[in-house]
Amino acid sequence: MAHTDDVLIPLAELQALCVRVLEGLGLTPPHAQAMARVIAAGQRDACASHGVYRLLSCAHTVRASQGRVRLDAEPVVHATGGPVVRVDAGFGFSPLAFERGLPHLVAAARTHGLAALAVNHCFHFSALWPEVEAVTEHGLAALALTPSHAWVAPAGGRAPVFGTNPIAFGWPRPGREPFVFDFATSAIARGDLELHRRAATPLPEGAGVDAQGNPSTDPVAVAQGAMLAFGGHKGSALSAMVELMAGALIGDWTSRESLDFDAGAGATPCHGELVLAFDLARLSGGDPAPHQARAETMFDAITSQGARLPSQRRYAARERSLREGVRVPRALFDEISALA
Amino acid sequence: MAHTDDVLIPLAELQALCVRVLEGLGLTPPHAQAMARVIAAGQRDACASHGVYRLLSCAHTVRASQGRVRLDAEPVVHATGGPVVRVDAGFGFSPLAFERGLPHLVAAARTHGLAALAVNHCFHFSALWPEVEAVTEHGLAALALTPSHAWVAPAGGRAPVFGTNPIAFGWPRPGREPFVFDFATSAIARGDLELHRRAATPLPEGAGVDAQGNPSTDPVAVAQGAMLAFGGHKGSALSAMVELMAGALIGDWTSRESLDFDAGAGATPCHGELVLAFDLARLSGGDPAPHQARAETMFDAITSQGARLPSQRRYAARERSLREGVRVPRALFDEISALA
Repeated sequence: MAHTDDVLIPLAELQALCVRVLEGLGLTPPHAQAMARVIAAGQRDACASHGVYRLLSCAHTVRASQGRVRLDAEPVVHATGGPVVRVDAGFGFSPLAFERGLPHLVAAARTHGLAALAVNHCFHFSALWPEVEAVTEHGLAALALTPSHAWVAPAGGRAPVFGTNPIAFGWPRPGREPFVFDFATSAIARGDLELHRRAATPLPEGAGVDAQGNPSTDPVAVAQGAMLAFGGHKGSALSAMVELMAGALIGDWTSRESLDFDAGAGATPCHGELVLAFDLARLSGGDPAPHQARAETMFDAITSQGARLPSQRRYAARERSLREGVRVPRALFDEISALA
Repeated sequence: MAHTDDVLIPLAELQALCVRVLEGLGLTPPHAQAMARVIAAGQRDACASHGVYRLLSCAHTVRASQGRVRLDAEPVVHATGGPVVRVDAGFGFSPLAFERGLPHLVAAARTHGLAALAVNHCFHFSALWPEVEAVTEHGLAALALTPSHAWVAPAGGRAPVFGTNPIAFGWPRPGREPFVFDFATSAIARGDLELHRRAATPLPEGAGVDAQGNPSTDPVAVAQGAMLAFGGHKGSALSAMVELMAGALIGDWTSRESLDFDAGAGATPCHGELVLAFDLARLSGGDPAPHQARAETMFDAITSQGARLPSQRRYAARERSLREGVRVPRALFDEISALA
């Protein structure tokens, strides 16, 4: 795993480096800190695409969006004591808006049994697992959805309508890391398409169609055509659900509107996000412990047959990073340090 | 579409026939009527596997379960005025419990912005689309989940852990049929496996594994091994989520526990169900009309390129059934009539 050209850096130092880079881009300290937390967490968990590499795309977004990203946006929380919490991110980056909304979401879920956090008008570049994981730290289950840019055709179609539209879910496990998954409803990640295009290597079967709607593994043809959802018409239906739940339902943009707003700048998507939180005691109508034990029995039935739980690899990387330091490829580390 | 050996019968008559069959099985009139509504609706929409054919499996369940299905169970609604509504179905069939909970779910979602209906301890044989559609009729969005019997191995495994675990979603569309999907998170339906086994025809690739965990298209080998989730590790993760959300979260059984309870009787699964409802005005923070228009723009972008919305085929069949009568294959009609 270790490459001699990897830098090993303690998490706190990496986070501080991220803060310096982000403040250097003009972000206010609260924004820089919230963003640095999720970016450093991505690197810590060996999620290369959501790690410090994202600092480069944040830098691009700040430059390319020509002022549309509000670097000093102050999130406005609307919490009425009911189970719906709304945060207007004011066209800033999303992590600070999520952090500001989280305590209200947790309190509302505990009070009412379930609650929704709708974050509106945010530039979104982060994975969703840090958010569902943050909810599970309060003993709650969580479901998070967000659109992106319209890059994905519906099943049976050829023109992009949906974003890569991730779905993330978290379940608290007593005394250990939560059960968490976070995946794009597209067959492959947008970043993977770019990597294949640069390397001129074929895409996996089913990843996309050309502009005429024919299945293609040519990354150039698919970039001109459309990506596809995972799992055929079922994944496509889920992707539509993400547009509806984390778009229209919360009064925010679809992936198509996000891409139109971008107007070719290549900035990170701008839209809303929906996070639902569930209180185990309130939903089960009593002591949740026996029902959590039920969940543990299921997890055991998965792992005891040699199958993997989602996030297992991420947690192993985290453990290693906290022990040995966070690994960053030397070239990337140098590129980022130059921004600081 | 029309076969000369099809019976054409008005919906109300078909429903009355279903009621007679179900009362003949010993179900109380409220149960028989609630079940007849969803069974006749399935036939009306040309969902063969959830149509009147289900009367035969209900008959089998009543016989095989040896009193475990409570034919006269009176659902007990726990509604406190908060957003969590719980209905204890008391080991009866689920449709009546859902019907009794629905008005409370709708009222709670309108009052609070979102609400959850947890139905516990029900024998479940019906599709989820009639339920999410019923919620959309009140102008609300809906998400429904339920486990089943443990027939599906986790991605990378070979032993069954998950049920076929359907996910259904509904979105209200002004002045027309809602956007609704309802699919199993297994690659194929359990009924399809049975049909392939009887016909000795190969399963589609990816449908299952043999007892050693090797991919197999042999229906006998897969019945001894395990079915697989759709969409690889993503579908498998969703299936785990269904077990957690519609099982442990609401204090009810997993698909494994349902199958253990069945003890080889081959009855329909017994477990819980979770239905979430969302109020568009409350979640969007104002008039939902412009946001519903956003959803319509997305639907247009799908259909205008020749792709299909989920349920389109079902709605076409419904329209035809309401005009011409509901089609039932003659042999099936005779078999059912003999039960009445």
